[in-house]
Parts: sequence; structure tokens; C-alpha cells
Amino acid sequence: MIGVIGGMGPLATADFLHKVIAATPAEDDEQHVPLLISNDPRIPRRPAAILQGGESPLPRLLEIRDRLIQAGATALVMPCNTAHHWHSDLQRGCTVPFPSLIDIACDAAAARTTESACIGLVATRATLAAGLFDAALAARGRRVLRPTDATLDTAMLPAIAHVKAGRLAQAGPLMAQAVQGLLDHGADLVVLACTEAPIALAAVPGDLQGQCVDSTLALAEATVRLWQQSAAGSALRGA
Amino acid sequence: MIGVIGGMGPLATADFLHKVIAATPAEDDEQHVPLLISNDPRIPRRPAAILQGGESPLPRLLEIRDRLIQAGATALVMPCNTAHHWHSDLQRGCTVPFPSLIDIACDAAAARTTESACIGLVATRATLAAGLFDAALAARGRRVLRPTDATLDTAMLPAIAHVKAGRLAQAGPLMAQAVQGLLDHGADLVVLACTEAPIALAAVPGDLQGQCVDSTLALAEATVRLWQQSAAGSALRGA
Repeated sequence: MIGVIGGMGPLATADFLHKVIAATPAEDDEQHVPLLISNDPRIPRRPAAILQGGESPLPRLLEIRDRLIQAGATALVMPCNTAHHWHSDLQRGCTVPFPSLIDIACDAAAARTTESACIGLVATRATLAAGLFDAALAARGRRVLRPTDATLDTAMLPAIAHVKAGRLAQAGPLMAQAVQGLLDHGADLVVLACTEAPIALAAVPGDLQGQCVDSTLALAEATVRLWQQSAAGSALRGA
Repeated sequence: MIGVIGGMGPLATADFLHKVIAATPAEDDEQHVPLLISNDPRIPRRPAAILQGGESPLPRLLEIRDRLIQAGATALVMPCNTAHHWHSDLQRGCTVPFPSLIDIACDAAAARTTESACIGLVATRATLAAGLFDAALAARGRRVLRPTDATLDTAMLPAIAHVKAGRLAQAGPLMAQAVQGLLDHGADLVVLACTEAPIALAAVPGDLQGQCVDSTLALAEATVRLWQQSAAGSALRGA
């Protein structure tokens, strides 16, 4: 059973669940990936912790991690990019596999581009300030294009806030504008490095999604593989 | 934190999560209902247990119930109508509130109709055979209209199976036909008493949903109220 540290935000967790289900080759209930999902949003705000020295979410995230493992999770995933600032802290002492969403999204971006391609980022200011994607993309030989402060303030962050409040119709056009801005400034591909971003983009017509890596979808596909591998491993051990 | 005994099927659990989020008045993550969701579909098939004396899902459901309570659930809900055949067994010895989806859906149907109104049922053959809705609707002074065997075999059950396999485009028209059939045969209102049914119906245009009680939505709204009451209770106890 895969444990999901979710609730950051709840709609992103629901979107992740949908994408895991859609990515699973299943004819009936039993063939789906068993998940134990903590959709508990009572986690200190990640942006405030990173940008303003606010209360750290780490103790709460550790508590949720351990609760999921104790309840039977044999691997963990966390569908929130910003929270990956604490991923190495969460991996330390973790008794089950816990792959990084950042690595998975960057692998997906690398697979779709060539050496030295320019990767645009749709992310929270906190994810950008923490530099979560810079080293990971550099390690894969890719250049990073960050949004301007103006794009962040007038399009990207308002779109994310609209999703968190369930206002998808308002979120969509702002997110589309943010993605288009990155493409206009030379991005060969855009990573939707915030799990609210694909929800916003899905709310507007057009084909911008085709020029993006959806980090939620990449994590969902990796989750299905993780389960298939562990199920195959169990079958082998049982044989 | 509300525990969710889900995975029957996974898409119905995702739909339930969406409906809880949409029913919550929230501006930001922290205001959402904390949920711990078992989306573990490894549960013996409910229809086979009821109709053919197959393996009972009860031991597995009890295990999931206790796992959720041990992990901190302060109340439980189960977004699957057929599994409510075992609801009283699950309530026995349960240390936290565990309202019945059947009662909640029948309350919603009663609130929208007058005495002796005729309520059509969209349900699995197992839910119908177990008579889950008959006594509950009779207790509310409502008459029950069951689907014919032909409707079950050619429209309702294939639509449910299509949803479980993710084929919503095929599920939609069949479910619409099943609902329309109940209305044509005199139903004043139709209860979508299978959590796959509203997913199918949402996949077709038209206003049939307006003539239905969505049991998933009714449970989602009850879940938000359950959380608000328990949160208010906690605040009072803390005062």
C-alpha cells in the first residue's frame, strides 16, 4: 500500500488520485493501486516557513509520515512541490522508499528535451526561492527559465490561490498567461512544478498542456510503477 | 480527522473527495476537512458475497475500520452503498461515529419529496437484493420503484462496470437510459444509490442529475457537517 502525504492542497490531492487511477491498467476495483491518503491540510504553511522564517511544517510532516508507515504504507509519495524543501529531512530515518517528486518531474522534462534545452518553471515563490529545481535540472544538463516577479505576482500566484479556493474559472486564464509568458521568453518546455498548476490549466481550452510536464501526472505514473514493482517483488518473495 | 473506507471503487472515492472539497467553504488549505482515506481496493467483492455466498468482505472492512481509528480517525464514512449491507456489523464495537450512507441518502430523498412519493433506485443487484433502501425509504413514508431485470442487465450494471474500468464515455448514455427509464415508470425522484452512478451521469449532457439524489454528494455534505460539528465540539471542550 502506497502512503500519500497530501492535503497541500486538497484539490491537488484529488487530482493526484484521479491521475493514479487513470494511469492504472485496471478492469475492476481489485486491480487498482492500494493507497492510504492523508488529506490533512492542518500543516503549517510552506511558503511562510521558507520565505519568512515562519513555523516549520517538518514536525507535522514527520508525524504524518510515521502515521502512514505505522498504518501499513510500504512506500510514500508527496504530491506537493514546495513541501519537497523538506524531502531530505523526511527521507532521513524513513524505513520505506520515498521517491522525490522533483527528481521525477525533472526526469520527465529531460526525457522530452535535448541537452541544454531551456525549461520554464511554474512554481510558487517559495519553491523558486528554495531552488528546488535548479540543481536537479542542472544535473540533467538543462537550463532553467524562472518567471519574472511581475508574472509571479499578477498571474502565477493568483492562479494558485484561486485553485486553493476552488475558483477554477478564474485560475485557468491566469495560469495560461503564465505558461504562455514562459514559452514567449524562450522555454522549450514548461514544468508545472506546483500541483495546483495543472488543475488551473485544465480549466481553459487550448493545447498549452502539450508543452508542459505535469508534475502531478509524472508522480502518479511513478506511483503506479512503484506499486507494480513492489507487487512483483512480493510475488517473487512468495515464490 | 474523518476516516474514509474507500476504494469501492477508486473512482467513486476520488469523486467523493472532490465533492467534500467542493462542499467545504474554504479560502485556503487549512480550512478544508482533514481526511484519512483508505483507497485500498483489495476487498472481497460485495456483490458476489451477497448474491452468491462468496467470501465476506467483513473481516477486511473491520481491519480497515480499525486501522483508520488507530491512525487517528475521529469519525468514519464509507462511500459505497452496497458495502452498507455490513454497516451494522461495522458499527458494532466501533468507538467513533459512523453514519450510514443509506440513511443520509434517504433523508435527502425525503427532504425533496412529499409523503408517499415514488423513489426510483439506481443500484447494484446486490444492493437491491439486500433490500438496503426498502426499509429506510418505507420508514420515511416513501414508495420504492426498483429497476426491471432488463434495465439492470442492459443499462445499469454495464454502466457501473464501465465506470470501474474508467470508460466514462460508454457509461454515461447507459446510465442516462437507466435513470430515464425509472422516471418514465413513475419515479418522482431517483436515488443514485451506487457511487459509480453519479460519475456516469456526469459524463453525459442533459439535466437528469436535477431529478436525482446523488448519494455521494449527500454523504460528502454530511461529512463536512460532521467535521464542523466535531470541530465546534472541540472548541467548546477547549474553552
